[in-house]
Amino acid sequence: MNKLLFTPGPLTTSLSVKEAMLRDIGSRDAEFLEIVREIREQLLALGNVARPDYECVLMQGSGTFMIESVISSVMPGKLLVLINGAYGRRIENIARVHGIAVEVVEIEENRKITPADFSVPEGVTHVAVVHCETTTGILNPIEEIGEVVARAGAGFIVDAMSSFGAIPIDANGVDFLISSANKCIEGVPGFGFTLVRRTALDAAKGRARTLSLDLYSQWAGLERDGQFRFTPPTHALLAFRQALRELDEEGGVAGRGARYRRNHEILSRGMKELGFEAYLAPEDQSPIITSFRYPKAEWFRFEEFYARLSELGYVIYPGKLSREQCFRIGTIGRLTARDVEDLLHAIGTIIVA
Amino acid sequence: MNKLLFTPGPLTTSLSVKEAMLRDIGSRDAEFLEIVREIREQLLALGNVARPDYECVLMQGSGTFMIESVISSVMPGKLLVLINGAYGRRIENIARVHGIAVEVVEIEENRKITPADFSVPEGVTHVAVVHCETTTGILNPIEEIGEVVARAGAGFIVDAMSSFGAIPIDANGVDFLISSANKCIEGVPGFGFTLVRRTALDAAKGRARTLSLDLYSQWAGLERDGQFRFTPPTHALLAFRQALRELDEEGGVAGRGARYRRNHEILSRGMKELGFEAYLAPEDQSPIITSFRYPKAEWFRFEEFYARLSELGYVIYPGKLSREQCFRIGTIGRLTARDVEDLLHAIGTIIVA
Repeated sequence: MNKLLFTPGPLTTSLSVKEAMLRDIGSRDAEFLEIVREIREQLLALGNVARPDYECVLMQGSGTFMIESVISSVMPGKLLVLINGAYGRRIENIARVHGIAVEVVEIEENRKITPADFSVPEGVTHVAVVHCETTTGILNPIEEIGEVVARAGAGFIVDAMSSFGAIPIDANGVDFLISSANKCIEGVPGFGFTLVRRTALDAAKGRARTLSLDLYSQWAGLERDGQFRFTPPTHALLAFRQALRELDEEGGVAGRGARYRRNHEILSRGMKELGFEAYLAPEDQSPIITSFRYPKAEWFRFEEFYARLSELGYVIYPGKLSREQCFRIGTIGRLTARDVEDLLHAIGTIIVA
Repeated sequence: MNKLLFTPGPLTTSLSVKEAMLRDIGSRDAEFLEIVREIREQLLALGNVARPDYECVLMQGSGTFMIESVISSVMPGKLLVLINGAYGRRIENIARVHGIAVEVVEIEENRKITPADFSVPEGVTHVAVVHCETTTGILNPIEEIGEVVARAGAGFIVDAMSSFGAIPIDANGVDFLISSANKCIEGVPGFGFTLVRRTALDAAKGRARTLSLDLYSQWAGLERDGQFRFTPPTHALLAFRQALRELDEEGGVAGRGARYRRNHEILSRGMKELGFEAYLAPEDQSPIITSFRYPKAEWFRFEEFYARLSELGYVIYPGKLSREQCFRIGTIGRLTARDVEDLLHAIGTIIVA
């Protein structure tokens, strides 16, 4: 059964994106190199930046591999991580595994991080934050945070994994803007990407702590001959090129964001009508993914709820909160208002049953 | 144009393998978890091992990511790398990047590594070697090498990237046997895998130097709930499951190896008739990929030769030798005797033109 994925990814993608994978292309083929070049250029444009000030680096693996590539490749000094969820904590963990000096500012998972929450201590060379914390669906104000970071003269690393492509981002205020193929651009999983300020990239030369995840060398390889240093996921890249075209056809970031917001609004209203309580205040909530508290009703057991919905063809997502019992419903990917209404109908049948 | 890929990968795959990617599946979906479980079990069987003595770990990224995962996750002591090509040197580089103590025995690229070429010095805890060195196509005798390693009481790491699935391997003599999805099993690129002796895996606990490439944690995650710790390349895994079925239909490792050997024989005979000289002695040559010396003839310039063949729909591969000018032709992937004959015909038309 082909189920609809109401998750933070892998997502439901269009058939045409998947059909782009119905061919094998050589990783050194001129056509493939042109596709990679095109993808890198279009990603920069989506972040409102361009060469020579910014560069785009692609990295094999999941989004976390791309995050680890940045953290492990660029740190000379101390990292400050601003945390209000599991993905912020993951950045901290990556730094610790590599023996990078790290400080954290951790706030409640149901609160946005604001400039009032932190200062940049002496000795901190880079500050990292998650844009849309998929743990809850909260959206952190990266522009305001970035201003504080810039005033302190530190480098700014933003995990925009689940927001890039659907929420407007001006990468000019960011040194490393990180996302992945299978989020709001609606490609299939297989690689991540970073928009990086050229001066910050140059400063990373020789600082990598791994071979595969070496950000600078990956970029230098792509520049030298257009090729990945190590086998690229050619099919995922073919799919991504098609996904970028479809993003453009939908009206770019504005058009896609509008569809996701509508999905989210229908979901929020419908879930409220069904008696579910959202975890976040509406003003902090992104249109990407929404957390709902476990209902206190007798009938509710999450595993059963999940399984019943899955049988009906709708895949939702478990929670990841430290202290509260929630589940999550994503509204990104190739999902329409109608799909969300169908999901709500399915949830309704389970509740009365 | 859909070209035939006479390369070491990404390879030409069957249409049915690619068609398996025409759906989106949730990374926590019960069906997906069952597919992952099946894949891991079948890979063990292909290596003639089984649980509980051996385990199979999958890792996102290219084959090199899988190699780096093993090297960076398991080394407590000193690594000895036996080298007769670029992929052996890459293992050395990985060790050096991670600050792992490493010694090397390096021999000529046109010679097989034999037990006479090395001993295991005091203090060496692990020995690594490449099975089929894709640099040349040479096949190193891992059974004989493994006996020396075992006598020294060291752990044995084998890079079987381009041999596993087509050349019979008994993983019982190996502690870490590493390969990738888009080689002889004829899947698409996106992940690698390791068959690992359970005791060696347990010994690696807590030794990883990265988060993403942590071999033990990746295994522990798969064991805990059947899930990858970080987003898996779901489409590449769907394709791989289909590729494993087609390997079975072809008669397993024996059947696949027979087709590749026939491809290689036709290629070798045909290229000789066309005046090309193979780099390796026939007895050292694998059926995987073959290196040919640049002809001394006036007409030959590799870039032009490559481009002309590519225009005709045949993608070959450049050389990677340290000291000699060669190009390479792979005979793996969904290629038949007829495809090889067509390639030879195309080469013939370029020579006379």
